[in-house]
Amino acid sequence: MKPMKKPIKKPKPKSSQMWGGRFEDKPADIMQQINASIDVDKRLWRQDIRGSVAHCNMLVAQNIISEEDGEAILKGLEQIGREIESGDFEFKPELEDIHMNIEARLKDIIGDVAGRLHTARSRNDQVATDFRLWVRDACSAVIEDICKLEDTIDTICREHHASVMPGFTHLQAAQPITLGMHLNAYKHMLERDKGRFHDCQKRLNESPLGAAALAGTPFPIDRDMTANELGFDKYMHNTMDAVSARDFAIEFLFCCAQCGIHLSRLAEEVIIWATPQFKFITLSDQWSTGSSIMPQKKNPDAAELIRGKTGRMNGNLIQMLTVLKGLPLAYNKDLQEDKESVFDSFDTIVLCLKAFEGMLSSATFHTDEMLAAAEDGFTTATRLADWLVMNLNMPFRDAHHVTGRIVKMAEEKQCRLSDLSLPDMQGVEPKITDAIYDALKVA
Amino acid sequence: MKPMKKPIKKPKPKSSQMWGGRFEDKPADIMQQINASIDVDKRLWRQDIRGSVAHCNMLVAQNIISEEDGEAILKGLEQIGREIESGDFEFKPELEDIHMNIEARLKDIIGDVAGRLHTARSRNDQVATDFRLWVRDACSAVIEDICKLEDTIDTICREHHASVMPGFTHLQAAQPITLGMHLNAYKHMLERDKGRFHDCQKRLNESPLGAAALAGTPFPIDRDMTANELGFDKYMHNTMDAVSARDFAIEFLFCCAQCGIHLSRLAEEVIIWATPQFKFITLSDQWSTGSSIMPQKKNPDAAELIRGKTGRMNGNLIQMLTVLKGLPLAYNKDLQEDKESVFDSFDTIVLCLKAFEGMLSSATFHTDEMLAAAEDGFTTATRLADWLVMNLNMPFRDAHHVTGRIVKMAEEKQCRLSDLSLPDMQGVEPKITDAIYDALKVA
Amino acid sequence: MKPMKKPIKKPKPKSSQMWGGRFEDKPADIMQQINASIDVDKRLWRQDIRGSVAHCNMLVAQNIISEEDGEAILKGLEQIGREIESGDFEFKPELEDIHMNIEARLKDIIGDVAGRLHTARSRNDQVATDFRLWVRDACSAVIEDICKLEDTIDTICREHHASVMPGFTHLQAAQPITLGMHLNAYKHMLERDKGRFHDCQKRLNESPLGAAALAGTPFPIDRDMTANELGFDKYMHNTMDAVSARDFAIEFLFCCAQCGIHLSRLAEEVIIWATPQFKFITLSDQWSTGSSIMPQKKNPDAAELIRGKTGRMNGNLIQMLTVLKGLPLAYNKDLQEDKESVFDSFDTIVLCLKAFEGMLSSATFHTDEMLAAAEDGFTTATRLADWLVMNLNMPFRDAHHVTGRIVKMAEEKQCRLSDLSLPDMQGVEPKITDAIYDALKVA
Amino acid sequence: MKPMKKPIKKPKPKSSQMWGGRFEDKPADIMQQINASIDVDKRLWRQDIRGSVAHCNMLVAQNIISEEDGEAILKGLEQIGREIESGDFEFKPELEDIHMNIEARLKDIIGDVAGRLHTARSRNDQVATDFRLWVRDACSAVIEDICKLEDTIDTICREHHASVMPGFTHLQAAQPITLGMHLNAYKHMLERDKGRFHDCQKRLNESPLGAAALAGTPFPIDRDMTANELGFDKYMHNTMDAVSARDFAIEFLFCCAQCGIHLSRLAEEVIIWATPQFKFITLSDQWSTGSSIMPQKKNPDAAELIRGKTGRMNGNLIQMLTVLKGLPLAYNKDLQEDKESVFDSFDTIVLCLKAFEGMLSSATFHTDEMLAAAEDGFTTATRLADWLVMNLNMPFRDAHHVTGRIVKMAEEKQCRLSDLSLPDMQGVEPKITDAIYDALKVA
Repeated sequence: MKPMKKPIKKPKPKSSQMWGGRFEDKPADIMQQINASIDVDKRLWRQDIRGSVAHCNMLVAQNIISEEDGEAILKGLEQIGREIESGDFEFKPELEDIHMNIEARLKDIIGDVAGRLHTARSRNDQVATDFRLWVRDACSAVIEDICKLEDTIDTICREHHASVMPGFTHLQAAQPITLGMHLNAYKHMLERDKGRFHDCQKRLNESPLGAAALAGTPFPIDRDMTANELGFDKYMHNTMDAVSARDFAIEFLFCCAQCGIHLSRLAEEVIIWATPQFKFITLSDQWSTGSSIMPQKKNPDAAELIRGKTGRMNGNLIQMLTVLKGLPLAYNKDLQEDKESVFDSFDTIVLCLKAFEGMLSSATFHTDEMLAAAEDGFTTATRLADWLVMNLNMPFRDAHHVTGRIVKMAEEKQCRLSDLSLPDMQGVEPKITDAIYDALKVA
Repeated sequence: MKPMKKPIKKPKPKSSQMWGGRFEDKPADIMQQINASIDVDKRLWRQDIRGSVAHCNMLVAQNIISEEDGEAILKGLEQIGREIESGDFEFKPELEDIHMNIEARLKDIIGDVAGRLHTARSRNDQVATDFRLWVRDACSAVIEDICKLEDTIDTICREHHASVMPGFTHLQAAQPITLGMHLNAYKHMLERDKGRFHDCQKRLNESPLGAAALAGTPFPIDRDMTANELGFDKYMHNTMDAVSARDFAIEFLFCCAQCGIHLSRLAEEVIIWATPQFKFITLSDQWSTGSSIMPQKKNPDAAELIRGKTGRMNGNLIQMLTVLKGLPLAYNKDLQEDKESVFDSFDTIVLCLKAFEGMLSSATFHTDEMLAAAEDGFTTATRLADWLVMNLNMPFRDAHHVTGRIVKMAEEKQCRLSDLSLPDMQGVEPKITDAIYDALKVA
Repeated sequence: MKPMKKPIKKPKPKSSQMWGGRFEDKPADIMQQINASIDVDKRLWRQDIRGSVAHCNMLVAQNIISEEDGEAILKGLEQIGREIESGDFEFKPELEDIHMNIEARLKDIIGDVAGRLHTARSRNDQVATDFRLWVRDACSAVIEDICKLEDTIDTICREHHASVMPGFTHLQAAQPITLGMHLNAYKHMLERDKGRFHDCQKRLNESPLGAAALAGTPFPIDRDMTANELGFDKYMHNTMDAVSARDFAIEFLFCCAQCGIHLSRLAEEVIIWATPQFKFITLSDQWSTGSSIMPQKKNPDAAELIRGKTGRMNGNLIQMLTVLKGLPLAYNKDLQEDKESVFDSFDTIVLCLKAFEGMLSSATFHTDEMLAAAEDGFTTATRLADWLVMNLNMPFRDAHHVTGRIVKMAEEKQCRLSDLSLPDMQGVEPKITDAIYDALKVA
Repeated sequence: MKPMKKPIKKPKPKSSQMWGGRFEDKPADIMQQINASIDVDKRLWRQDIRGSVAHCNMLVAQNIISEEDGEAILKGLEQIGREIESGDFEFKPELEDIHMNIEARLKDIIGDVAGRLHTARSRNDQVATDFRLWVRDACSAVIEDICKLEDTIDTICREHHASVMPGFTHLQAAQPITLGMHLNAYKHMLERDKGRFHDCQKRLNESPLGAAALAGTPFPIDRDMTANELGFDKYMHNTMDAVSARDFAIEFLFCCAQCGIHLSRLAEEVIIWATPQFKFITLSDQWSTGSSIMPQKKNPDAAELIRGKTGRMNGNLIQMLTVLKGLPLAYNKDLQEDKESVFDSFDTIVLCLKAFEGMLSSATFHTDEMLAAAEDGFTTATRLADWLVMNLNMPFRDAHHVTGRIVKMAEEKQCRLSDLSLPDMQGVEPKITDAIYDALKVA
């Protein structure tokens, strides 16, 4: 198909809306308010221009529009990019969304030829493409910040690989561990979080472009070409799936929520460790705040905020699961609600990761307090039981009961296990020898 | 206690933060970013000033500050109110929140005497007071919009009290009802929603002011006076509860979510009714949108958006339930996450109520299509069964089986029940008389 | 209408299902499995019989069925009640639900006259009635358990009205309070929770009975009579609302979730207080558990379980909000999912309330440790600042800064505020006199 | 270390609990009730025995217990397996959980040597191992059922690859598609769901066994050996992570919820298509139900239940996210709440997949109704616009407006686009030729 030279004249629509051909009335004010998404989706502008550039190149390559028109469009899009970047672009709510805002501006700049860009394309495949590009980048950004936090944790782990502290279960001292070992557990959690973001990114990396409204297009487009140019692994074969799928967004929201939950666990520990009762950690002034009424206060606000922000990431996940529930194919306007929560969870997880990195890297750990807590908490009781099994061939269950009685004795005497005398212990189990004292040391 | 005449000179703090007395470092950039809430809580400015005015009046009445200082403070607050209203007020993130922003500006205007306003008060009771005032107003606003929507529904119900349509169960035509009866069901749901907002408003209407940080204050304050001036029913006796309770916010979020769910049910019906297959309703152009690619489309976007926005109200509810889970007393910084979701659910439910009102009031109902659907769907089958019970003294279960066989016959003949001949029906149950035809009429 | 004497003969249905008149095939196995609800809803048996008795009495009173038949039905229902109570009743999944199980058994016992009970009634209004009765009782039961927990809290509050402990904000010691005051805060939260259950109970107390499938019934029923007999305030005027409304169930789920959140806050405190680092509380052996491997452990399992069970109550709330989203009128089978979560949240909140009551009433509070913590945490710093304002007429902001510097001095000297010398304090603010020491005492 | 021959005598504990050595009181009744998990976790019995066998084999191989003892233990475990399988095993709530129930029974059978099995193991690593094994199997089972549903969809797609129907956006006819294409979209969604289950399964396949309570064990165990025997890819290096991580369970819950959401979309479509207004599909009698009061009803209950069951899968996801929020390391009793929701989501998704498979494979699609709907809905309007662009070189935007006016004309004339006369269309755009009619055909 060869583009004709002379375009024909266009009719004048009654409604200013681009889709308003057969409409007699403009949208009501409240309708416009509930309908407009530009305040939220303008954040997709880079992706929208990138997608339009790829689409335009393909239209030219396939002779669907002329090279001349293609060049005009590309030049116009470039200018729009500069305008938005510099803050000179005026976003208009009456133009509803980022796609219409950019297209309308393109027409201002290059005239009616702008209208050729939307050939063989719909807002449905356009927004799906933009959004996938955005989430793909977001995954990379989150992964980068996870890596930075992991590095910080690694550094502390190396420094404190031998700093003894009580390992807790039920927030009760259980057995001696090291601070390095404790924090390293979070490294492993973050590794799995990273794996989830990678999986999400890989799964979403398919191009919806060319699906048009829902059924493809009769124009001889080349979907491989746009998919390649935009860095997608392939294009989505089912065009209805391409425009209506949002599981990629929900999966991203889940990855954020799960990572946030992991951060909330460490945040809780930081808050507890920072109490004068525990005194395991002191946060730097840079990462603490004071009170407007209590001058002595130094509060772990960053840790509390990180803990609290799990709420919004859980909420965002439920938001999208609710939106998609029972939604028939293909595009429905409900889907407009898909971006705000994704943007919010992304901003939140990035902020939390950065804050955690800063808070941890500037914190001071009090290894003396940790060691003392490990020594005070009967944390070697399990070793005592294990000694009984290994040396007296006692079944573990019986060793457990013997140890329980020895612990009770130490509790009553208000002393550590290692402070009990051998006769005391032999009073419970006569075969115990003084080799037992090695097992009772914490370090 | 009589205020002294000559104030003493103040020391110069190292940190610019109001609480920075013993801090050597300023907050890190990311810390400031995660910590600042001014972008969200500036929306409380009216309530903050209102609370401060009441607090100031009480401090003067109780001779805690001088009348002169009190007047200066009130004048300053008034000016700040004008500045914010007119858009001339500069909100500063480094001042963290609305309270500090207003207090700092007060100091600019009236000098050091501004510092006396915070006597016998903490940000903890201040924000709790502001927030309760805000939610109290929000309840009233939502109730007003529910009433408007109810009025619109009432109008349509009156107009269509006799417009026959099929009542659906399982989205299958069940029995004949009227459009008025159908929409009136939503009136009843909205009435209960209104009741929930009323209950929420009543339950929260207690004053936290005077609880200070968490333990009250040694100053001889009059908590009844501030409670009265602010329109609260009473003050909260337990000061720790006063600063840490957020169940009022969660209850508000629940009320919004539940009301949103009700709207989503009607929204779903509007969407289904607007299909060409049902053709029960046509939305006005003002409340529809078109497609950027399919020129014939007229889409019920408003209904879809209302349905979709249930997601964010469910999400906001989960957000706050998550934040409060396991949070020890009294104030924790996690609570800073309390306002954004409340503001968002409020904006959402108000927008949805207004949109629904506009969409419904301008819609056209096609009573002919509804009547036809009622006539086609064997919707009088239950009446037939009831007739058998009433007139032939058949147990209902048996009448149900007889009717089932008559329906099957009509289905096979592809006719309505009322189109079956008497001999046909008597073939199933010989005692049927032609009085049956009255029961088979839809209207 | 007078019931006729001689009933006619019934036809034989092909499908065993009560509704199977026009069905040629029985349900598939998996269909039966997904469709049957008897394992869950058999719990409604008391309410189902109670509702049937009221319905039967009304049918007789209105001459819709004969006295003789009515008596047979009542006697049959009574026998079924005894059978279920004694465990002799066989619930059959192929009969789907509690309603059909009872009706089928009724037929076994009294024969075909059983079929008359379902006159002028549908399973739709029947289950709505049963479920409202059940939730109404559930509210009373929860309220009773809240009251018991409140009583226990009251007892402890009275005993410890003067036991000084540090009040915390951000889990940092803030100001001295008493244990009585702290626990009393939870009394206030529980009071509001109770209020919510009362409101829920009041709002739901309307009778759906008589709405039949969705459109009422042509039989001359007396809805006031059944509403009265079942203790409802009135009957629901809109019959479509009557069968499709489930906001009462969602509201109940919300009340449970919110109450659970309150319990989780105190549970978290109990867990923290029970650490050897805090040592504020010791749980009794009856309310603790040990470890299968660490013989010294004594774990606050009950508190942890109460904290953890917030999860399922939040989850149940979201479950029902999701189910109802976008559900058209009137009855849809999705609504079958309404009972399991309500039963589960009820069982959970009752168990948590009882467990909390037992755990608290048998716990030991260590007032000496609490007092020491209050004395160590600079908790009188705010009083110091207040003293400066009251006695030196310093603006609060300035007093705050002075106090901050004095706290820092005490921190450096590792002493309490009350251990600082007067000259030390005067070095920061010369006008301080030794009257200051009264303000620095914790008690 | 060589096991000694003669075991020593065990002391008699006061409390019957295995961990009760130092406890003076038995748990309170309510404590036992809230604490016991056997009703739920008995479902792990196969995994528990499998894990114990692997642990026992390793203990023998490492000379930690004697071969003789090992054989006795294995024989005992085998017998227990048979007892549970045959229903002869008595589960006792006072033994708390599946681990203690099996261990206690083992002691009944083989005597005190049973106590040696718990050497170098804790319930913490034991339950984590059991649960990972269970979820691993669950992923395989779900994947299998997804494959079966995909096969059924494929079969229908092949049969209906050319059955024209309207593609919908906003539930309004948009463009002609085929039924095959529509259903194939779900195949793609299910493929991604399957990918998520695969990723989840792969990520969780690490062995916690050997982590003991949280800190490993001094016994010379071989963690590689147990990991291998149990089919894990490797063992978890961080022992604290091993016992406290539950992200694998949450990820599984998410996979179920997301898959459920996809099913709910198709379920909604089936419900809408089954209305007499759409008449696109008729469900078989095997997958439909009737009404107890309305004899003509044939309801798509299975589809409604599948749609409704999304609620519980969303709820279960939120349940676990809530439980894990802010939970310090390592094991806490809150984690006991982890299994019920996982079991429930598994049962639910499997039931939904099977039900969908059965419902679809036995359904009848009405291709004539679908074709008619495609022809009536102006669904070729976009092709008309594309024709204008391709043949008249009109910019798409202008073509869109021209088409809008032609659609309006057809609407007013109440005819299809293809029924408009050429002069009619030329009245809007004179350059249109009769070649246009090819573009207006639906098929």
